[in-house]
Amino acid sequence: MEERNEIILKTVNRLLAENKLSKVTTILGKLYSADAAEVVTHLDERDQKKIFEVWAPDQSANTLLEMEEDDQVDIAESLSISAISEILNEMPSDDGADLIADLSKETAEKIFKVMKPEAAAEIRNLLKHDEKTAGGLMNPEVVTLKKSITTEEAIDELRKKAPEIENIYYVFVVNDENQLVGVVSLRDLIIASPKTLIKDIMNPNVIYVEAGVDQEEAAKIISKYDLLALPVVDQEQRLLGVITVDDVLDVVEDEATEDMYKLSGTIDIEESDVMRSPFPRVLQARLPWLAIAVVGEVVVVGTIAEHFKYLLATLPALAVYWACMTSVGGNCSFQASTVAVRDLAIGHINSKAIFLRIIKEMRLALVMGIITGGILFVIAFFWQKYLPLAIVVAVANVLIIILGAFTGTVAPLLFNSMGIDPAVSSNPFLALIMDAISLFIYFYIAALVLGKYSVF
Amino acid sequence: MEERNEIILKTVNRLLAENKLSKVTTILGKLYSADAAEVVTHLDERDQKKIFEVWAPDQSANTLLEMEEDDQVDIAESLSISAISEILNEMPSDDGADLIADLSKETAEKIFKVMKPEAAAEIRNLLKHDEKTAGGLMNPEVVTLKKSITTEEAIDELRKKAPEIENIYYVFVVNDENQLVGVVSLRDLIIASPKTLIKDIMNPNVIYVEAGVDQEEAAKIISKYDLLALPVVDQEQRLLGVITVDDVLDVVEDEATEDMYKLSGTIDIEESDVMRSPFPRVLQARLPWLAIAVVGEVVVVGTIAEHFKYLLATLPALAVYWACMTSVGGNCSFQASTVAVRDLAIGHINSKAIFLRIIKEMRLALVMGIITGGILFVIAFFWQKYLPLAIVVAVANVLIIILGAFTGTVAPLLFNSMGIDPAVSSNPFLALIMDAISLFIYFYIAALVLGKYSVF
Repeated sequence: MEERNEIILKTVNRLLAENKLSKVTTILGKLYSADAAEVVTHLDERDQKKIFEVWAPDQSANTLLEMEEDDQVDIAESLSISAISEILNEMPSDDGADLIADLSKETAEKIFKVMKPEAAAEIRNLLKHDEKTAGGLMNPEVVTLKKSITTEEAIDELRKKAPEIENIYYVFVVNDENQLVGVVSLRDLIIASPKTLIKDIMNPNVIYVEAGVDQEEAAKIISKYDLLALPVVDQEQRLLGVITVDDVLDVVEDEATEDMYKLSGTIDIEESDVMRSPFPRVLQARLPWLAIAVVGEVVVVGTIAEHFKYLLATLPALAVYWACMTSVGGNCSFQASTVAVRDLAIGHINSKAIFLRIIKEMRLALVMGIITGGILFVIAFFWQKYLPLAIVVAVANVLIIILGAFTGTVAPLLFNSMGIDPAVSSNPFLALIMDAISLFIYFYIAALVLGKYSVF
Repeated sequence: MEERNEIILKTVNRLLAENKLSKVTTILGKLYSADAAEVVTHLDERDQKKIFEVWAPDQSANTLLEMEEDDQVDIAESLSISAISEILNEMPSDDGADLIADLSKETAEKIFKVMKPEAAAEIRNLLKHDEKTAGGLMNPEVVTLKKSITTEEAIDELRKKAPEIENIYYVFVVNDENQLVGVVSLRDLIIASPKTLIKDIMNPNVIYVEAGVDQEEAAKIISKYDLLALPVVDQEQRLLGVITVDDVLDVVEDEATEDMYKLSGTIDIEESDVMRSPFPRVLQARLPWLAIAVVGEVVVVGTIAEHFKYLLATLPALAVYWACMTSVGGNCSFQASTVAVRDLAIGHINSKAIFLRIIKEMRLALVMGIITGGILFVIAFFWQKYLPLAIVVAVANVLIIILGAFTGTVAPLLFNSMGIDPAVSSNPFLALIMDAISLFIYFYIAALVLGKYSVF
């Protein structure tokens, strides 16, 4: 939290202790909603409730929608049905739908009965769409025009609707069936002379998405074309709503978080944070990969170790380099796979260049392998003073790094082509594979070299 | 690439083979710049050069700025100085500055001499700011107004400037010293009656950043307040330019990529991709952590293994569970640290809740440890049929998971409080620490238990 908000928080807490609630709401009312939300988030639950009970519904709505999802739910559940219904009446319906979706069905139904019928109907409609799709992200409140009116009439229309509409910077042109036929920016409206017809300045080549499209896809389109808003249509091209760029900023952040969590082997991004999800859900999100890793390591890598464990009796110093071998393999594959996963996510990867990418990654790995292998050779030679061991660790290191780079590059591309999210592949699945490969190479080369040079 | 663009690419390639260059530019000219850029990116270098030579400079500029940075540089370097100068005259100066910054100083100076003096001066000014700051991200072309004019006059002014200005949706109000004193949205201008004075509708409480602020900070502010544009000022509060939300979308993506790369142990995000950077730079970005990991594993973990290697002679089956022990520790700490790193990046972490986070992570770890420890106990008991070994792996597993969660939670918070980017801490540094901790615990407990139960 910024210093300014820290100071305001202290003042608010002092005023609340003195029971000066109206002064508190005056102070909070002067802040940007995002700042008011930050301050309110840091108050006791009891104080939060007090504030939302006396606040005007529109102020409550603006502040509430800037808060974290689970804080919103806590406050909504603490308020009376009539209080939360009034707040929801004032909230943009996409935010309202997100909030209602997190409440129990029972509570939701009670709220719908008390809300304004139109507002309730809008939210009910939005709830039909999957939360992670363009339909789940859109706001149904848009300004639509017919193409036969003039820019002057259009601006008049905008002026009337502006107070209740979130985004007026793009205006959508529809036909009598409400099908999307064009788009005009407020910029174009301002530049054009007042008597110009909309159909003469509109862009008929509108970029849009269907409601069922994944939100990540919608975000990519907005980012690619630098749009402020993206219209959402149904299968008959009828305009349903609009996704604004600020919603997309959140999506980009969430999707990046999701990929990072997947890289770290947690299954469900929404439930991975101990601070925000109940214990059993966090456990469900984090345990599965861990359990798979444990069993996998024992069964796969343990079997390899079991097979070669006699070598450790022959040359106990092999144990000294074991951790280094598995670590270097894991690191290399993880570096290569992270770059590939991120490139796939951002959409940079060109399918024709896959072969070139593998070659380049492996050339890099060869050089890194020789450098680190050289370091290892010197360490082993001077520490254990036994040439065959130095040869084993150096050669194994080069091979492990090359195979790590290969696996790390190919696995995400392979998963992606099979329609599996490549981020899932990286860790700990890739780590398990690399542990097995690394250990097998290490011990296999040790067996070869020691078989030849063995002093026993 | 989308199917539609694939088809266009084929057509363009056919037309180029038939030397019908003007048909090609007509087709590309009808596309959105982002699509034209996508198609042009996939052409031969020779064909790209041909197209940019015959294209109008503004069309070249719009297409070029939608391309990847290194493709831009390749094309700029292939064109004559006069051709690229004409294109740069037409490009928004923030994009122009980004491109010029990637060319050699020599080429840049030659270009500046041929460019329009005002355009060159604007770019030179921008180049004074660090690329990763608000100043490096901003566009200096903004609409400014005095507070004494009417909304009608303001709209007239906008109408005149709109064709050359990227963002006209926020208009900034400045005093005679060009200091920022207020902001008016185009929406407010449209709603207000024509004779209203700007000073009566402007918001004097403008959200702005100073030019030296990190671009990530600027992105956070735009995201927090859902802004379309954020003004950038110098230390005397004089307006220098504006950051638009589309620039910020790229920043959010880039910063997430950077964090992911850091998690995977590559140092320099810009140079980590084998497909986009020259070989020596990728090597510089990827090798250091790998070399540190190799040496660290040998010195730290190797010394622990050296100390306990006699146990492997006593009970060779300990080797079977070695990989599992280090893997589970690494996984747990990586899960916990990823959640903490991401929370720090998004700004969710509340310093007061750190203690609570550690407790919750460790409670989770205890449960996960007991479950996976139970699985390991059963496997070891039935595989090696030796109770002390089963006890060792189960107990070590619980302790390792708890310590992994602790280390993974505390390390990023510790680094963050020391002013070091927490993403750096995760891998492979954390992996090294966890390998050492895991192996020490495993062998230490083995020594304890086997000392007591030893059949030898």
